[in-house]
Amino acid sequence: MKAFVMKEIGRVGFMDKPVPRPGPLDAVVRTTTALICTSDSHTVKGGIGPRENLTLGHEAVGVVHETGAEVKGFRPGDRVLVGAITPDWGDLASQNGYPSQSGGPLGGFKFANIKDGVFAEYFHVNEADANLAKIPDEVPDEMAVYCADMLSTGFMGAEHGDIPIGGTVAVLAQGPVGLMATAGARLRGAGRIIGIESVPSRQKLARLYGADEIVDFTTEDVVERVLDLTDGQGVDTAIEALGADATFQTAIKITKPGGTVSNTGYYGEGEFVRIPRVAWGVGMADKTIRTGLCPGGRLRMERLLRVLAAKRLDPTPMTTHTFPFDEMERAFEVSDKKLEDVVKVLIRF
Amino acid sequence: MKAFVMKEIGRVGFMDKPVPRPGPLDAVVRTTTALICTSDSHTVKGGIGPRENLTLGHEAVGVVHETGAEVKGFRPGDRVLVGAITPDWGDLASQNGYPSQSGGPLGGFKFANIKDGVFAEYFHVNEADANLAKIPDEVPDEMAVYCADMLSTGFMGAEHGDIPIGGTVAVLAQGPVGLMATAGARLRGAGRIIGIESVPSRQKLARLYGADEIVDFTTEDVVERVLDLTDGQGVDTAIEALGADATFQTAIKITKPGGTVSNTGYYGEGEFVRIPRVAWGVGMADKTIRTGLCPGGRLRMERLLRVLAAKRLDPTPMTTHTFPFDEMERAFEVSDKKLEDVVKVLIRF
Amino acid sequence: MKAFVMKEIGRVGFMDKPVPRPGPLDAVVRTTTALICTSDSHTVKGGIGPRENLTLGHEAVGVVHETGAEVKGFRPGDRVLVGAITPDWGDLASQNGYPSQSGGPLGGFKFANIKDGVFAEYFHVNEADANLAKIPDEVPDEMAVYCADMLSTGFMGAEHGDIPIGGTVAVLAQGPVGLMATAGARLRGAGRIIGIESVPSRQKLARLYGADEIVDFTTEDVVERVLDLTDGQGVDTAIEALGADATFQTAIKITKPGGTVSNTGYYGEGEFVRIPRVAWGVGMADKTIRTGLCPGGRLRMERLLRVLAAKRLDPTPMTTHTFPFDEMERAFEVSDKKLEDVVKVLIRF
Amino acid sequence: MKAFVMKEIGRVGFMDKPVPRPGPLDAVVRTTTALICTSDSHTVKGGIGPRENLTLGHEAVGVVHETGAEVKGFRPGDRVLVGAITPDWGDLASQNGYPSQSGGPLGGFKFANIKDGVFAEYFHVNEADANLAKIPDEVPDEMAVYCADMLSTGFMGAEHGDIPIGGTVAVLAQGPVGLMATAGARLRGAGRIIGIESVPSRQKLARLYGADEIVDFTTEDVVERVLDLTDGQGVDTAIEALGADATFQTAIKITKPGGTVSNTGYYGEGEFVRIPRVAWGVGMADKTIRTGLCPGGRLRMERLLRVLAAKRLDPTPMTTHTFPFDEMERAFEVSDKKLEDVVKVLIRF
Repeated sequence: MKAFVMKEIGRVGFMDKPVPRPGPLDAVVRTTTALICTSDSHTVKGGIGPRENLTLGHEAVGVVHETGAEVKGFRPGDRVLVGAITPDWGDLASQNGYPSQSGGPLGGFKFANIKDGVFAEYFHVNEADANLAKIPDEVPDEMAVYCADMLSTGFMGAEHGDIPIGGTVAVLAQGPVGLMATAGARLRGAGRIIGIESVPSRQKLARLYGADEIVDFTTEDVVERVLDLTDGQGVDTAIEALGADATFQTAIKITKPGGTVSNTGYYGEGEFVRIPRVAWGVGMADKTIRTGLCPGGRLRMERLLRVLAAKRLDPTPMTTHTFPFDEMERAFEVSDKKLEDVVKVLIRF
Repeated sequence: MKAFVMKEIGRVGFMDKPVPRPGPLDAVVRTTTALICTSDSHTVKGGIGPRENLTLGHEAVGVVHETGAEVKGFRPGDRVLVGAITPDWGDLASQNGYPSQSGGPLGGFKFANIKDGVFAEYFHVNEADANLAKIPDEVPDEMAVYCADMLSTGFMGAEHGDIPIGGTVAVLAQGPVGLMATAGARLRGAGRIIGIESVPSRQKLARLYGADEIVDFTTEDVVERVLDLTDGQGVDTAIEALGADATFQTAIKITKPGGTVSNTGYYGEGEFVRIPRVAWGVGMADKTIRTGLCPGGRLRMERLLRVLAAKRLDPTPMTTHTFPFDEMERAFEVSDKKLEDVVKVLIRF
Repeated sequence: MKAFVMKEIGRVGFMDKPVPRPGPLDAVVRTTTALICTSDSHTVKGGIGPRENLTLGHEAVGVVHETGAEVKGFRPGDRVLVGAITPDWGDLASQNGYPSQSGGPLGGFKFANIKDGVFAEYFHVNEADANLAKIPDEVPDEMAVYCADMLSTGFMGAEHGDIPIGGTVAVLAQGPVGLMATAGARLRGAGRIIGIESVPSRQKLARLYGADEIVDFTTEDVVERVLDLTDGQGVDTAIEALGADATFQTAIKITKPGGTVSNTGYYGEGEFVRIPRVAWGVGMADKTIRTGLCPGGRLRMERLLRVLAAKRLDPTPMTTHTFPFDEMERAFEVSDKKLEDVVKVLIRF
Repeated sequence: MKAFVMKEIGRVGFMDKPVPRPGPLDAVVRTTTALICTSDSHTVKGGIGPRENLTLGHEAVGVVHETGAEVKGFRPGDRVLVGAITPDWGDLASQNGYPSQSGGPLGGFKFANIKDGVFAEYFHVNEADANLAKIPDEVPDEMAVYCADMLSTGFMGAEHGDIPIGGTVAVLAQGPVGLMATAGARLRGAGRIIGIESVPSRQKLARLYGADEIVDFTTEDVVERVLDLTDGQGVDTAIEALGADATFQTAIKITKPGGTVSNTGYYGEGEFVRIPRVAWGVGMADKTIRTGLCPGGRLRMERLLRVLAAKRLDPTPMTTHTFPFDEMERAFEVSDKKLEDVVKVLIRF
């Protein structure tokens, strides 16, 4: 089968690979639709170390092709979604409530990391009964595929933020995860959502997904403006959706005492991420810092699909580009180099 | 001043009372708009025991008339909302996180219970800085007044239900509190909301506020239907919004193991409310039962007002009737006897 | 191998059965020590319906005899503990945080329910990597075996009770689960623990495990006395450890507004368990009712073993009787008929 | 009356001040016993900015001298404890669950910060009904005084750490707050407590209060040793009880994915407190960072006193020095310069 791989650090391309076979608890899925993620670019640049001929991609939907002998809930032909994170559900970290950390820190992140990813005609899914979800008829593939990572990660940002109904929220950066954090804050009942973003097309999407106010960090002092919008108190919840030391610091500064900084960003650089000491209340202001990795699993995916089926949210306006799998090289370039105001690139198989 | 009172059990009417005066921490508010609640009917029927010439009503907005010497955040002329529940914030129960229980069980419930209520030209508010909230210009009185009890109680039903994004929820009865519990479930991101209701006009409002499915208990088996709508699992959260033993039992039955029954109803009759033993998993199915009393206080009211200001919700379609204060007797009758498909009766002063 | 079984409702005895074989994820354990539980008596009386030649018992430790091909963390010869509840860790209920409910209500309860139990020379364990735990050298078998159910269930009562440091707790009935709930309340830092019990030998054990006060329901009014001991407020947490309608009602009555009734009892009789309406604050006093089933799994067992290894608690004073497996019939009779002030009967293999 | 004050940055001494008078909700307490805190030294060094003739001290017990007209629960002659933090209970932050932040970040910290402290013959207490607690007869002053800050802050460290029964905990530094965090971890049921400390007398106290293992950072690699003691996984909870960038970094490193770093330390230096990026799982390892300020209030104090009354803990072994108030200058020097293996200095009035 055809697979789009990272040949080595800095180099991508197609290659032929055998169709994978499932172990007793596993499934193999024929890919129908996928999305490219900025993490794919991080990986290719060496963010998780060197890899050789590793199939890229972790956001996909498809049709079950083959199942292992012990799989009970799925059969060939089922239209399915798989989360970007596919935990080992019996692991100690899963028993502790953190399946994304099963098998070690970030250990639930298997696709395009410790095994081949989903940018191929077929891909392998561990613990199929626990990690696949059937897609309801009323949810098309190009919508469902957003659940794998974008909805799950963005919503996690809102969920970890412990937003009260009517609470105030700032979302720092309105890339696709930030946009879904914005949508997530709205889904949790936030009363005022402040989107921090400078790119006009993303500002527009932020408003669509629930931002009541937009702050452009290139023309305004974010801290001053957010305090102003919150009667000088700061927000209940600040969601970091970029993964930069400066943004993280801003998040601490604009969060009220007793509030939460919820992180979704991946920090790729530097030895430290820095907490501004005084704004953090010298370690005594009851400002909590939460982090996490995209929740996976069948239950999570079923719930996200239900949000789409009930028409609470439509993620497809984020699809700025669509390519057939054959044009993956161009598709990857558009996403990687952030060409043409790209938000998300969708691939059809 | 003119006040609409419960003269004794079973008898209401107008009477003249002096305008109240504030203690050092208190305020007196000139009433502009109020709502009649079914609790007012319970009270008149003797639900909380005998009362003599007690002013009725606990849902109102108005304009600050006079403040005590120690009040810092409000001054005469401020347009304000006061929660139906006005806690003593220093009480042990408040320190424990349950201000509605300050001063004893249900002790935060003062209006038309242990002191005169709001169906008068002026009313008194204890701890004004902690219990009043300024109403934003963009929120009209007839909208803001719904925050006092309907939004606060209904949303509490959803909040106590610990609804996950994409979770399944049933709301049992779609009176005004049930409708706001439905809206609350939607605000928390529920993926499927099932409204249980038989009255067509209330079914219609339920759909408006977020119900995805309506189950009519007069024509369908509720338990069977809800299990059917949830792949046989039951809902994550069942919100009881009626206050009847039978409905409570149904709520237990339709909740999945690990789910929550969240109560908003007032149980006015019988020695017991009964848990069906087997459906409750013989006490071992991890089905949690939460209860509570309308949260009050400035922070709560500010957050609810923010939901309205952000146009996340419009409660005014629940106003089926409007009367001037002069016609309070007729207004009360409409609400009390549930005439003309009444949902809520609004009073203008 | 020899197994002690329920032949039919009301009749127990020995029989010969083949040694079980593990599936790919499973293990077979050679039993060394077991405990008899009152649930075994419930089962024999028909509490979970008819069973034929079902091996009884769910509390045991032993030595790994054989492992399936996919088991990674255990090998023959390992001294191991297995929880009474052995969840399916990939199940939707497990993903939802309620592994004891995996596979349906109370579905994690497999031993002596949906498969043979542990009163046999060998027993089978599903998902061995996730459900077994190695026993540290410093913890002897006769101590470790208490983790399987007694510590796990009793501590759950305390944990679900959400006890604050210095909080007040009542534990209703001081059987072995109640005693471990008492110990659990102490382990969570309760400031005053009130044990409700009439049997002198159990009162004495209750004091040993942390009860500061004992209330004898045969000679005192429990509600009056507990209110007296808590300045009229009621306890933060009442733990029901009997499983009787009357005790449950008392638990509601002695819990303060904002407090929690935490249930560990199994309710075996009647159509309903009844909530006293007025003491429950007519459904509005913020009194929460939690229930649950003994948590299982490797992580739980490792944590419980750590409590024993650190000498925070010694459960062995509860062992009032010890028998060899050969004398199982007499042993069962002592436990079943509550002879000779029995608390727990330990079986050596 | 005589008061021990900070005359200006770097200079302390006695001076005469008038006995304070209570406002309507307040009380004035005659001091009987107090403790010196390292925060007093921070303050004198300018840690909270310049102050002129500010009475120092925030840990004290005494006897009620005078009460305001509205005070209901206390009268002259009552033996009372007051928390170091005395919140405004009606404030928005208190309503939000964070009373220590009432009136602004760290705003509950009034003594020796925004008003005179307790190192005087009399001191003033705001909102007396909500901030005082009566001391039970069985708890002597020299024991009760530890509740004001040491128990409340140290236990908060354990409580914020969300320690499961049987969980693993490390407490970084065994000064008086660290020792009480150690005791708090034991009170929450931790299964293995690792105390990080190099001073032999403090190591000894750490063992007394519940440390199962001691790690001496001057002779061992803390990260390596803690991982070793936890099967390579790291602890469930790391409690920072020093307030240093290096210790904070260690806390992040030794905490497992899904674990919590709970801060009690005051960070007095530097622009930043730094998170080690990779050990933090690049922002995705579900490691939560909690902070807080000593909880105050009557309920908290009553609960802490109950722990002492029940003899769960004896804090008096931490009293290494006792002085009469007349010798306050020498007492302060011993505490400030950490002379003679000092842990806590107690002052008798």
